[in-house]
Amino acid sequence: MEKFQRNERIAVLVKMLSDFPGKVFTLSSFTEMFGCAKSTISEDIDILQNLASRFDLGTIETIPGASGGVRFAQTIPGSIANEIAQALCTELSKKERILPGGYLYMLDIIYDPVRVSEIARIFASRFHGENIDYVITVETKGIPLALITAKYLNVPLVIARHYSEATDGPSVNINYVSGSSRKIETMVLSLKALKRSSRILFIDDFMRAGGTAKGIVDLAKEFDSEVAGIGVLIETAAPAKKLVDEHFSILTLNSVNEEEGIVNIKPSASLC
Amino acid sequence: MEKFQRNERIAVLVKMLSDFPGKVFTLSSFTEMFGCAKSTISEDIDILQNLASRFDLGTIETIPGASGGVRFAQTIPGSIANEIAQALCTELSKKERILPGGYLYMLDIIYDPVRVSEIARIFASRFHGENIDYVITVETKGIPLALITAKYLNVPLVIARHYSEATDGPSVNINYVSGSSRKIETMVLSLKALKRSSRILFIDDFMRAGGTAKGIVDLAKEFDSEVAGIGVLIETAAPAKKLVDEHFSILTLNSVNEEEGIVNIKPSASLC
Repeated sequence: MEKFQRNERIAVLVKMLSDFPGKVFTLSSFTEMFGCAKSTISEDIDILQNLASRFDLGTIETIPGASGGVRFAQTIPGSIANEIAQALCTELSKKERILPGGYLYMLDIIYDPVRVSEIARIFASRFHGENIDYVITVETKGIPLALITAKYLNVPLVIARHYSEATDGPSVNINYVSGSSRKIETMVLSLKALKRSSRILFIDDFMRAGGTAKGIVDLAKEFDSEVAGIGVLIETAAPAKKLVDEHFSILTLNSVNEEEGIVNIKPSASLC
Repeated sequence: MEKFQRNERIAVLVKMLSDFPGKVFTLSSFTEMFGCAKSTISEDIDILQNLASRFDLGTIETIPGASGGVRFAQTIPGSIANEIAQALCTELSKKERILPGGYLYMLDIIYDPVRVSEIARIFASRFHGENIDYVITVETKGIPLALITAKYLNVPLVIARHYSEATDGPSVNINYVSGSSRKIETMVLSLKALKRSSRILFIDDFMRAGGTAKGIVDLAKEFDSEVAGIGVLIETAAPAKKLVDEHFSILTLNSVNEEEGIVNIKPSASLC
């Protein structure tokens, strides 16, 4: 069998582990691939663990026991999460982003793969110990964030929609009250989308009163499942009392002053 | 300055390059990071190029000249693209996927981050030489594929929607005729979403007659831009003549026989 040098093994290990965050690789899959002893691979992994922490590249976790192995977790130090949040605040405070009605233009940010990956790393780091089975979002603007968070947690993404389609198969409809507009909206989820008794993480771009999040909590109940976490990029400071109890947000939008062109947005207290 | 061993430098290089496919890193950014000579980094990169090709991990490209450097491209050998396509055919041919009307349930596939990443790698490999500025899709089911393709090509994602929202700002509406149902539909895109004179790649999950793709071609014209590529996961064999001239598909759906529970789907000729 071909022999591999340490730096070659390490390069391939990094690529495989970081392409599949959250996936457990057995040590024996690596010993077979490289034709080397377990102790050699263990030393390689020690080197990687050390490097990951020195360069803030996430965490390499070893899992002991028969079903054990090694996996890469997209964790992030608080200081870097804060830098990302601060950079987003600077970008979102630009007055040319203010739209009529005090809305902010942010599609360029929430659809940008690089920004989305940074933000999703914060969500994945926050929720990676919560035994999440699915990430869920409601179409449309939260989908990129939810997808990358799901990728980092190594779980499937589920998308609730506003209308059912022939390609859904049988589906569950629920009505919910949009917390800010008080309008009745519908969300639809295919019956095949979720296994019963699942732990679900709801990810979205924006939360005002939390009506959508409340809708997801109700929807989860129809699948005998539980919302184990709620993560939003931006929440508004008002109303302070949301329709759901616990949630995690990265930024808090205090106010948008259209006349003076001033956006008051800060990293959320929950981030620190 | 701290000294780094070759295997340490290589681990960090792999992580950085593969986290940002398509991004050009200058050699001097690495010599500064590691405090070593350019020749040392060049040797590291030689090792990586060799490994990437031996393990089918994509391509490490070096760009000569003053603005040069090194970047990682998500290319894929034809044999592996074919394996991925075959595996998808096997999965999609299961008779329990057949829905009333001859539709196929495939949300679990097109929302699964691991599958989506494999498929997007095929799109990225096919279009990475086309100087794409944006990836575009129409909500909702193609968004995961389009996002990861955009990530692999290091360009922003743009999502056309069916209704305009306050958070879009000023937007362009166009009407298009759905090729199969002959219904008039609307797509909306924020005016801020695309720079003029851009080259756009349209990515979607499914193409029947190509009405949506034709709509995107028309929409691009309103932004003085050009659709430089069209990539879909599945096209239907009928109608053979689509409303757009050139397109790339991974799978071709020949027929769904509801009564006998038989799905006839194959890797597309354009894949080979």
